[in-house]
Amino acid sequence: MLPLPVLEQAAAELTNYRGSGMSVMEMSHRSKVYVEIFNETKAKLKRIMQVPDTHEVLFMAGGATMQFAAVPFNLIGKTGKADYAVTGNFSGLAMKEAKKYGEINIAASSEDKNHTYIPQQDALSLSGDASYFHYCSNNTIYGTEWNYVPETGDVPLVCDMSSNILSKPVDVSKYGVIYAGVQKNMAPAGVAVVIIDKSLAGNEHPLTPKLLSYKVMIDSDSMHNTPPCYTIYMLGLVLDWLDTQGGTAGMEKIKSDKAKLLYDVLDDSKMFIGCADKAARSDMNVTFRTTSDELDAQFIKEATKLGFVNLKGHRNVGGMRASIYNAMPTEGVKKLADFVREFEAKN
Amino acid sequence: MLPLPVLEQAAAELTNYRGSGMSVMEMSHRSKVYVEIFNETKAKLKRIMQVPDTHEVLFMAGGATMQFAAVPFNLIGKTGKADYAVTGNFSGLAMKEAKKYGEINIAASSEDKNHTYIPQQDALSLSGDASYFHYCSNNTIYGTEWNYVPETGDVPLVCDMSSNILSKPVDVSKYGVIYAGVQKNMAPAGVAVVIIDKSLAGNEHPLTPKLLSYKVMIDSDSMHNTPPCYTIYMLGLVLDWLDTQGGTAGMEKIKSDKAKLLYDVLDDSKMFIGCADKAARSDMNVTFRTTSDELDAQFIKEATKLGFVNLKGHRNVGGMRASIYNAMPTEGVKKLADFVREFEAKN
Repeated sequence: MLPLPVLEQAAAELTNYRGSGMSVMEMSHRSKVYVEIFNETKAKLKRIMQVPDTHEVLFMAGGATMQFAAVPFNLIGKTGKADYAVTGNFSGLAMKEAKKYGEINIAASSEDKNHTYIPQQDALSLSGDASYFHYCSNNTIYGTEWNYVPETGDVPLVCDMSSNILSKPVDVSKYGVIYAGVQKNMAPAGVAVVIIDKSLAGNEHPLTPKLLSYKVMIDSDSMHNTPPCYTIYMLGLVLDWLDTQGGTAGMEKIKSDKAKLLYDVLDDSKMFIGCADKAARSDMNVTFRTTSDELDAQFIKEATKLGFVNLKGHRNVGGMRASIYNAMPTEGVKKLADFVREFEAKN
Repeated sequence: MLPLPVLEQAAAELTNYRGSGMSVMEMSHRSKVYVEIFNETKAKLKRIMQVPDTHEVLFMAGGATMQFAAVPFNLIGKTGKADYAVTGNFSGLAMKEAKKYGEINIAASSEDKNHTYIPQQDALSLSGDASYFHYCSNNTIYGTEWNYVPETGDVPLVCDMSSNILSKPVDVSKYGVIYAGVQKNMAPAGVAVVIIDKSLAGNEHPLTPKLLSYKVMIDSDSMHNTPPCYTIYMLGLVLDWLDTQGGTAGMEKIKSDKAKLLYDVLDDSKMFIGCADKAARSDMNVTFRTTSDELDAQFIKEATKLGFVNLKGHRNVGGMRASIYNAMPTEGVKKLADFVREFEAKN
């Protein structure tokens, strides 16, 4: 989902960007007008996320999945080892991809309880000589979210924030690498935002493709080749909209309030139950179910008729999942909460 | 450049795609409505390019530059060696990237004459045991284009067609891999189209990122992760427009006529001269110059004032370059040809 004002602006500017006579889709990435869009978008993101000067913002092809390979290609060479926390589907996929490139220590896993919880700091088995520690801060399928930043000493933190980036303030200085596919909270699919501590770049494996080298991307300002220009422009529009919502602090308030609307209903309910541990509940993806598969199916059917789409939970969890990313208006969440209440009253 | 009707349709459908109530930018790549867009786009491309059943069409992240690594990752393992023809900037970059992954034989090079020509078949030094032969069919900077398909026996042909794909019919069955960044003739930047002989997939290097594995991409129908959905939708619109122009046969006539308008002026001129050998002239990029750098600069200055943008030649060649990709209307090329004549008459 994207904010409607963003889509409307994109539509209005599509054939002729602000009097340039060209569509952003047609601009050379080296043209003055496009370089301005690019630089402004990067500057906005740096300002909104308070990216310190030690770090650089990159736009890289292939979404978060490409970073599953890029991270070990660039970073695992230091010691040949890395720690991975596996708390859901994507962190598991990242871990499997990383195994190609070095020795992986599973520093934490919530697989024993079908990823319904997030291991706490004292449960992390840090290997001590890891090149980095990798985790995924929000697990879309299971509806869990890390409510703390792991402490790993000198071992750089690498975090896949694809599904909760820009939903709250983040202390970027704590991270070696933050990466995020843009399609949840930032822009249409087609690029990953990578925020990297520049001191970590430059030690990539010799077989690293140039486009996956953090060093090459830093040195070329993400323009080693033609970047996905239009997607970056769309990100700029979304960041403008985010400013109107009070930035990440504003979004944090909004997203917490939105999630509370649903979690309060679940906690009051005798029919519905949240799938995730209360302490690990995600404000981006609310997973819940009723007392039976039949009732779940009936709920989804009736909800779909009313226009609530994509409510079916992932097959690994079952039940329902409400994804309430940044662009989902509070009004829509209220309506869903009301419908949950009505459904319970009627059944 | 993109055809104006395509941009207008994109703008009209941007906030609400054909009554779906959603923007294509917001659709889940697994949703019924998006899967239909995806499948139709792929089917259109297969039909227009007459892709045989032996081959599959993939949409891959990172543009052509990512393929510079993907090709050797997937294919060079067969013998550890590959043949590269270096006839310009991008084929040179592809060759350099491939050197990371195996032994590279320069099967042909036009560097001795600053890439003003294309080596002919009898000048190719084929190594015999290459895993593949790689060339770039059109050289944007130098304004040269291969006017023949190299014969390499059992060695699969791999061709970077980024800058002349869809400009003429191509016998896909002759190729092991055709790839193209979409931003010249197909869609806004952000994806590469890869057309691969399926029998070549499945032997990738163990360190190949999943997203660069042709096997993974074939098996997942380019949806191993969220693809650049909107870019693929835009490609679909461009293909619809291409149909209205008579497909690749129609485009071949149009592009030949467009290029002839400029080359005829150059050949008649006493002031202007084409940079490329006549036999190797590109119909996509017309490179030319006057008798002096000063006159070149004056020409570019006056042309820019009249709205002819991006006419400055690449620093490796100097002079001027007119890029006349598929979406450039004949009328625009006529105007430029007239201006070249007028400039000569006045100076």
